[in-house]
Amino acid sequence: MKERLSKQLAFIVEIDKLKQIFRQSRLIGVDRNENDAEHSWHLAVMAMLLAEYVGKVDVLKVIKMVLIHDLVEIGAGDTFCYDEAANRDKRERELKAAEELFGLLPADQAKEIRELWDEFEAMHTLEARFAACLDRLEPLLLNYHTQGHTWQRPGITSAKVYARCEVLKDTAPALWEYVQELIESAINRGFLVR
Amino acid sequence: MKERLSKQLAFIVEIDKLKQIFRQSRLIGVDRNENDAEHSWHLAVMAMLLAEYVGKVDVLKVIKMVLIHDLVEIGAGDTFCYDEAANRDKRERELKAAEELFGLLPADQAKEIRELWDEFEAMHTLEARFAACLDRLEPLLLNYHTQGHTWQRPGITSAKVYARCEVLKDTAPALWEYVQELIESAINRGFLVR
Repeated sequence: MKERLSKQLAFIVEIDKLKQIFRQSRLIGVDRNENDAEHSWHLAVMAMLLAEYVGKVDVLKVIKMVLIHDLVEIGAGDTFCYDEAANRDKRERELKAAEELFGLLPADQAKEIRELWDEFEAMHTLEARFAACLDRLEPLLLNYHTQGHTWQRPGITSAKVYARCEVLKDTAPALWEYVQELIESAINRGFLVR
Repeated sequence: MKERLSKQLAFIVEIDKLKQIFRQSRLIGVDRNENDAEHSWHLAVMAMLLAEYVGKVDVLKVIKMVLIHDLVEIGAGDTFCYDEAANRDKRERELKAAEELFGLLPADQAKEIRELWDEFEAMHTLEARFAACLDRLEPLLLNYHTQGHTWQRPGITSAKVYARCEVLKDTAPALWEYVQELIESAINRGFLVR
């Protein structure tokens, strides 16, 4: 029992580092980028509030998925979704990080977290696809409300942003409709290059 | 449908501010205090991993509770648990903040979030008590791993820390045993005044 709790607490202390992994998105109204822990929290609350748009979904599983989906970045770092070079070895770096980090937990919990992460990455189940929708929608909202902070970088176009949000189309049509309006509005307001 | 989604998204954008509400705890290994969004994320992951120590508990409800438990601080600010003066009008400030913030949501979801927050605050159900245990345990871990950062303030003693952690005693005896060991170790290492 004691050994089990020690392992759980070692993991809980280790993942404090997620608060230091910074993303590309800017927070609204303050000159600081968002970190992975804040992002994961935001997605979890969104899962609570927006589940109705994807039909019958296991909300607990979705929340667990978004809570742990970026943990591997403690070892592998944040990879900007539009950076093609960095995305080439992303999978390899993250697999190594997953082994090391999840390995701190008791075997049964390491397995549970790994399975949740694998399911999220594979994007086959409705839960994983809904989690992916949230993972696209949240930075979209932050970008829109920071005059297109991340979209201002060289090479980012609305075509790339549309492609990135593609998962919403079939998974959550009402959210997809909103996302399209938001992207068009961002273009019209000069936040994003057509 | 559109009006409902607009309300939900206005709330989702508004709560981005939780990432700017700073707590008293220091992050491990970096000179920065923790904010409420990071703290809420950490508690939610802990709820996933430590639920076994409190018997039959509705984990989804606990996770929802910890995800939203500090939202009122967007309006009311963080109140240091050991600041007696600030705690006198805390309830009043937070009730006002809850009305305003939750009121952004569609009525049914405003009601759900308010009920979760009320349940958390009342600490009567096992779910609320487990959430409170996590809310005590996480800053304890951060303090222990930052040489007692918050405990070094004038007037903080182990008696106050023990009193603050009292909820663990009956709710999660195995965690309580660990907490006692950690507090004693903190005293012995000079992180906390006996």
